[in-house]
Amino acid sequence: MTTQQLVAQIKQKKSFLCIGLDVDLEKIPKHLLNLEDPIFEFNKAIIDATHHLCVAYKPNTAFYEAYGIKGWQALAKTITYINKEYPEIFTIADAKRGDIGNTSTMYAKAFFEDLAFDSVTVAPYMGKDSVEPFLAFKNKHTIMLALTSNEGAFDFQTKKVGELELYKQVLETSKNWKNAENLMYVVGATKAEYFKEIRKIIPTSFLLVPGVGAQGGSLQDVCKYGLSENIGLLINSSRGIIYASNSDDFAKVAALKAKELQQQMELYF
Amino acid sequence: MTTQQLVAQIKQKKSFLCIGLDVDLEKIPKHLLNLEDPIFEFNKAIIDATHHLCVAYKPNTAFYEAYGIKGWQALAKTITYINKEYPEIFTIADAKRGDIGNTSTMYAKAFFEDLAFDSVTVAPYMGKDSVEPFLAFKNKHTIMLALTSNEGAFDFQTKKVGELELYKQVLETSKNWKNAENLMYVVGATKAEYFKEIRKIIPTSFLLVPGVGAQGGSLQDVCKYGLSENIGLLINSSRGIIYASNSDDFAKVAALKAKELQQQMELYF
Repeated sequence: MTTQQLVAQIKQKKSFLCIGLDVDLEKIPKHLLNLEDPIFEFNKAIIDATHHLCVAYKPNTAFYEAYGIKGWQALAKTITYINKEYPEIFTIADAKRGDIGNTSTMYAKAFFEDLAFDSVTVAPYMGKDSVEPFLAFKNKHTIMLALTSNEGAFDFQTKKVGELELYKQVLETSKNWKNAENLMYVVGATKAEYFKEIRKIIPTSFLLVPGVGAQGGSLQDVCKYGLSENIGLLINSSRGIIYASNSDDFAKVAALKAKELQQQMELYF
Repeated sequence: MTTQQLVAQIKQKKSFLCIGLDVDLEKIPKHLLNLEDPIFEFNKAIIDATHHLCVAYKPNTAFYEAYGIKGWQALAKTITYINKEYPEIFTIADAKRGDIGNTSTMYAKAFFEDLAFDSVTVAPYMGKDSVEPFLAFKNKHTIMLALTSNEGAFDFQTKKVGELELYKQVLETSKNWKNAENLMYVVGATKAEYFKEIRKIIPTSFLLVPGVGAQGGSLQDVCKYGLSENIGLLINSSRGIIYASNSDDFAKVAALKAKELQQQMELYF
């Protein structure tokens, strides 16, 4: 998917909502556990109920890997379902990968070709030659961790490297990498005050923003400082939507929660 | 596996060799491609031929994920085979994972419980709460990226953060985390001159050392500066061993290459 197609979808739906598909068998409605593939059935119900309200789905691969082969199969079925039924949706493999060159190429193939995701999240620690193999894929997007939403972000990311904090150094350095037009960044909503500074470095890049809802970040604050002229934000909510109810009505309640966020987003169009 | 058991194995075998099982279907002997599970058959042959010469096996998960479900199954069969046939061997899932707390716990379960690896590699960028969930597992080991063997290591890892380079800051900070006795670190052999400084910060921690062989690092230099009183090194070779031949004799030639390295290591006992 091109960035233009993503922007068009955002404008058409008046939404920049991303829904995190972080499926935990201990949290989904009990009646699904009797089905052959409870993870996929849960995702399918959530997707069918919310696809018109969001522009992206983001399965965090950890949740699938934790269930071994079955989890991996459920992930493959989920992405295939989205691509077939709702091809306009932008898909994100939240995998936070990063390795040396030839190995990063293997990861890129796994997510971009084998699973056919539109994008994958990567970690910056190993530098340019660990990320450029992802950037080489046409019409695929690489979403690099910059400033994350967790407490541990203060351990290294906000430490000064010369004149700049590490996360700013990551932005400054990476924007000169080959095919950097395929780069997006993860910036946590719990650190909304940082968006102003970030937009000075990367005024138009898309930012994937976790941390609204369960983690305490504010949609309004993020929009105030983070919006670009093409919106430039994908605001993620996982638990706040998919686990809003764990009864038979879970998909319907998830849609209501997604609708609440979409309506708040509509004000910015 | 406890660290004591790992050290005992090292002393008994007079080896601190780790063999990287990075299986690429384009590089393995053609005759294996007709078998039902070429990746597993390749690994099994390599393992059977080399287990007495090395103390650890390290599959890089990217290579398996790139083949989708089949790759994941081959990884599961490989680790199960090692644990059953050669339980004294230390196993490393080279996955370079890192995510926020509850997600890191899912990854830890995937590798430590579902797949039963002894250790997993993780990335430090997200800080303490992304790594401590791994450290909480008893007799399991978490191997954190410190200074990697690739060119991109100079993008961020060697940049000064206050008084210290980032990789030293990572060592200093992490050694105070909860259950830090379960921490090991990745330090690339291509940067052997750095080991002296690293040993001042972490004198006894085990270091996993990629980059000997194909990437140009020297075993002698690494040993000169990196050995601790309990050896404290796991020196990895992947391509230099497993792809030394791609004919029928591949396992035998791999064993010869492993033997060469083991004999160089024997001098340090």
